[in-house]
Amino acid sequence: MITPFTAKGDLDLDAHIFNLQKWNEIELGGYLVLGSNSETAYLSEVEKIELIRATVYHARDDRPVLAGTGLESTRETIRFTNKAGELGVDAALILTPFYYRARMGDTAIINHFLALADACEIPILLYNVPKYTGVNVSSKVIAEISQHPNIIGMKDSTGNIGQLVNFQKVAHTDFQILTGTASVWYPALSLGVKAAVMALGNCAPRQCVKIQEYYEAGQLEEAASLYRQMVPVNTAITATYGIAGLKYACTKTGLKGGYVRSPLSELTEGEKSRLDKILIEGGLIQ
Amino acid sequence: MITPFTAKGDLDLDAHIFNLQKWNEIELGGYLVLGSNSETAYLSEVEKIELIRATVYHARDDRPVLAGTGLESTRETIRFTNKAGELGVDAALILTPFYYRARMGDTAIINHFLALADACEIPILLYNVPKYTGVNVSSKVIAEISQHPNIIGMKDSTGNIGQLVNFQKVAHTDFQILTGTASVWYPALSLGVKAAVMALGNCAPRQCVKIQEYYEAGQLEEAASLYRQMVPVNTAITATYGIAGLKYACTKTGLKGGYVRSPLSELTEGEKSRLDKILIEGGLIQ
Amino acid sequence: MITPFTAKGDLDLDAHIFNLQKWNEIELGGYLVLGSNSETAYLSEVEKIELIRATVYHARDDRPVLAGTGLESTRETIRFTNKAGELGVDAALILTPFYYRARMGDTAIINHFLALADACEIPILLYNVPKYTGVNVSSKVIAEISQHPNIIGMKDSTGNIGQLVNFQKVAHTDFQILTGTASVWYPALSLGVKAAVMALGNCAPRQCVKIQEYYEAGQLEEAASLYRQMVPVNTAITATYGIAGLKYACTKTGLKGGYVRSPLSELTEGEKSRLDKILIEGGLIQ
Amino acid sequence: MITPFTAKGDLDLDAHIFNLQKWNEIELGGYLVLGSNSETAYLSEVEKIELIRATVYHARDDRPVLAGTGLESTRETIRFTNKAGELGVDAALILTPFYYRARMGDTAIINHFLALADACEIPILLYNVPKYTGVNVSSKVIAEISQHPNIIGMKDSTGNIGQLVNFQKVAHTDFQILTGTASVWYPALSLGVKAAVMALGNCAPRQCVKIQEYYEAGQLEEAASLYRQMVPVNTAITATYGIAGLKYACTKTGLKGGYVRSPLSELTEGEKSRLDKILIEGGLIQ
Repeated sequence: MITPFTAKGDLDLDAHIFNLQKWNEIELGGYLVLGSNSETAYLSEVEKIELIRATVYHARDDRPVLAGTGLESTRETIRFTNKAGELGVDAALILTPFYYRARMGDTAIINHFLALADACEIPILLYNVPKYTGVNVSSKVIAEISQHPNIIGMKDSTGNIGQLVNFQKVAHTDFQILTGTASVWYPALSLGVKAAVMALGNCAPRQCVKIQEYYEAGQLEEAASLYRQMVPVNTAITATYGIAGLKYACTKTGLKGGYVRSPLSELTEGEKSRLDKILIEGGLIQ
Repeated sequence: MITPFTAKGDLDLDAHIFNLQKWNEIELGGYLVLGSNSETAYLSEVEKIELIRATVYHARDDRPVLAGTGLESTRETIRFTNKAGELGVDAALILTPFYYRARMGDTAIINHFLALADACEIPILLYNVPKYTGVNVSSKVIAEISQHPNIIGMKDSTGNIGQLVNFQKVAHTDFQILTGTASVWYPALSLGVKAAVMALGNCAPRQCVKIQEYYEAGQLEEAASLYRQMVPVNTAITATYGIAGLKYACTKTGLKGGYVRSPLSELTEGEKSRLDKILIEGGLIQ
Repeated sequence: MITPFTAKGDLDLDAHIFNLQKWNEIELGGYLVLGSNSETAYLSEVEKIELIRATVYHARDDRPVLAGTGLESTRETIRFTNKAGELGVDAALILTPFYYRARMGDTAIINHFLALADACEIPILLYNVPKYTGVNVSSKVIAEISQHPNIIGMKDSTGNIGQLVNFQKVAHTDFQILTGTASVWYPALSLGVKAAVMALGNCAPRQCVKIQEYYEAGQLEEAASLYRQMVPVNTAITATYGIAGLKYACTKTGLKGGYVRSPLSELTEGEKSRLDKILIEGGLIQ
Repeated sequence: MITPFTAKGDLDLDAHIFNLQKWNEIELGGYLVLGSNSETAYLSEVEKIELIRATVYHARDDRPVLAGTGLESTRETIRFTNKAGELGVDAALILTPFYYRARMGDTAIINHFLALADACEIPILLYNVPKYTGVNVSSKVIAEISQHPNIIGMKDSTGNIGQLVNFQKVAHTDFQILTGTASVWYPALSLGVKAAVMALGNCAPRQCVKIQEYYEAGQLEEAASLYRQMVPVNTAITATYGIAGLKYACTKTGLKGGYVRSPLSELTEGEKSRLDKILIEGGLIQ
């Protein structure tokens, strides 16, 4: 989920709750607060806690709430994950550490996650997102950490299907591999992936759900066709225009996207018109 | 197709013809000579011509022969492509130029391919392989060049399915998008791709064909399952062990893989055992 | 300055103060707390504040204390920089934001630093370290931000001398360009750089100072020769072995290096012997 | 040396000879034909031979002629290097192979160069230029290959001074390390480098020579000052505008730069004015 800010850059919790209530009406499987598209890197810990509280409180009762609780050090990540657990989060999605990326080989990543798994009171999932971290986990990492009962899955945002299949092959049977990008939502479904956590879910939640429903009903052509329609939108709100584009698309589709926080900046008027065109072609606005 | 060399590093045309005759017995759709896995960067022009001649002569008559004819300059590429055409090649697969990659923006790539298309006597396809070139073509390039009647398609070796779908959306209806890696063969089929040119086709041609046959017969589970079985093999003969691994796998599966040419080097004994294990798991050898 | 931790991973303030007292005896120009080699990414804000307090208290009175106060968002960076100022820090060294690096173009970086400069109570310096951030600032950024009276300089850790000279050309006369790596300490001096903030200053402070003294006394050969002797040591404690290597070298040269914090890991015995050899060749230990 | 082409893209040997005669009048140390800035990747072998012949014939008798003879395979490189030797070239500057860069580790590079050294009739130098090749050689490579009597040196175009000093430390005493970029010409001189092969030598040969003369006469301030003046010009004709910029600067300074070959393209009018301004500031034109 995006995090709306006011024009002054303050956390806009009311807008967040407004959005959450909209999403509660759609058949989504759950929520992720403090993911990459939440500008979590720009939030203070107090703001993170406020967001978690509000999300846990306002999310529909039958929906799990995940929180992105990864920090760079093992001990800080444990501390914050357990705080999130106390606040009612169901599971934590934890980014691979990356600041000293030259040192973040397989062994460092494995040791980090096994230590977290032992010390965290809630289940954890690994979050692999090389576009931000510069670190891509290997099959060896997945083979090893997926054996731990408290590491219940991963989110892979690479969009690399061959890698996903290799992960599926080596992972423990109970390990849930989620895809982290709508760019491969249909192919991922066709390879046994059961869920996705993705930016597009903010501004096109019905379509994201519908692709899965079509797929599970055996309506493959409809699933593929809707997926195809969504890919250019997804490219626009992630690669081309980033979070400012995603928030703009949210606002145009009836949510309260709010402002981005500095040093990010809002779309220019030219960018807005180009994105409008893409949203129209994608059938999200008229 | 791989290019077999003798222990001394000479072109082993007999081994190439032997392999071709084996492949002729399998229901492949055609052949690519001088692709990336042919060590074409290591061949003299005379050797390239010998390989083309032998391939055109020994390929089953009903099978098109493609040749990788891309060189860095527009004029040299035209010259060599037309020579390949004179030797009987049906179409040319042309690498994006990349030596001065900081200059190879959309406009440079578009101009290069339009100039080639005008001057080449045979149809051409663009070959996009960032792992070697450091250049990844954009949707804008595909939208533009696909309008030219003599640019009949492309091979995309990125394994990036979202990008493939974006290319399909913008390309001319007649433009054929082939996938260039077995790592996405099944998902590509499920998104309308009709053909693939891939390393795995050398050492597991029956399996590559079978995945497509299953898919086209509506046996999706069988297609997906065989594809899954092949992905680790594909990872091994491309990313992990490279061409030396691919040639080793060819030899183990009944072809004449031959030696690699220096500065590439053969697998060590340890690498061979690890690859054996993967080939056994993949069901390619016992 | 490194940050020593105990075997359990707790902040070892006593060790830090011990080191500081050692450094106080050497003719260093000042101190940087919370720089990249301090594992600042692994510290909680409480720990950061403790480190700042201890450093300000124990640093020799005539020596300025700089603190690394950069966080990802403009507002959080302002808040923390002003807190550091209240604690007695003389100036702040501020990392370029980088999490959403695809969006961190010239304009975003310029706006971020100008906003910081306006709102921070203490002078600030930009910190350019692409090996960690993936962001390299341009001459345009330096030309613009160096005009602001509260942005007094930068630390450039690229080791790219041509870039440094371009920065010098465009920067305001009062803008101080410091080098951030001992790998170019002598060449930087010969091009007018007046100071350096560098990892090697931890374990070889006398040598770092001596190179400058030789240079300023016109003893160029001695300066160059000592610099040459230090480069392999510097390569070892940064590129080859990272912070664990730097801390090991500190301990071997009479400081209290302490432990690294997880997910970083200590050197293996083999790495220690290889580093010993380099420290002996560099004349730092016997 | 650049390679001038006519408007139609043909090799303009007359322009090349014109340039050579101009350069003969300046106190340069020698010539490099078929270097990276010669668009050698765009030349046919026949054209390469014509260029070598013309260069050997028209170069001042007391000046060595180097040729860039590196190709991807060991055997093709040997063949072409020996052909260059027969045509009168004094030494060969040989690019590291890079097409299969994932395989080009230390051992592959060492084996390649030792094989070349044994089989080539003329002395060879290694050419390290990661911006084009994506391969950066290690100190281990230099330590080993520099022992071979027929490998007489290297050209390092990284501009990384720390790396250069590490190379100097490990290399055989007789091994000549040349710098490959004017961006570090003065610092390289101050660290014992005796020669440079650089793009800027085309359009500002007098200045390049003068920096060295100043340095060797002990006029360090004059050397540094002229070097500083040249760095922005160098940045423009390499990083910013590439070969089209370099050729334009050559033409503006009295040489016959000629056209670039497709897929490179000429500067736009806007780029030309911006480059004019830089050339004026650099004192190369009025």
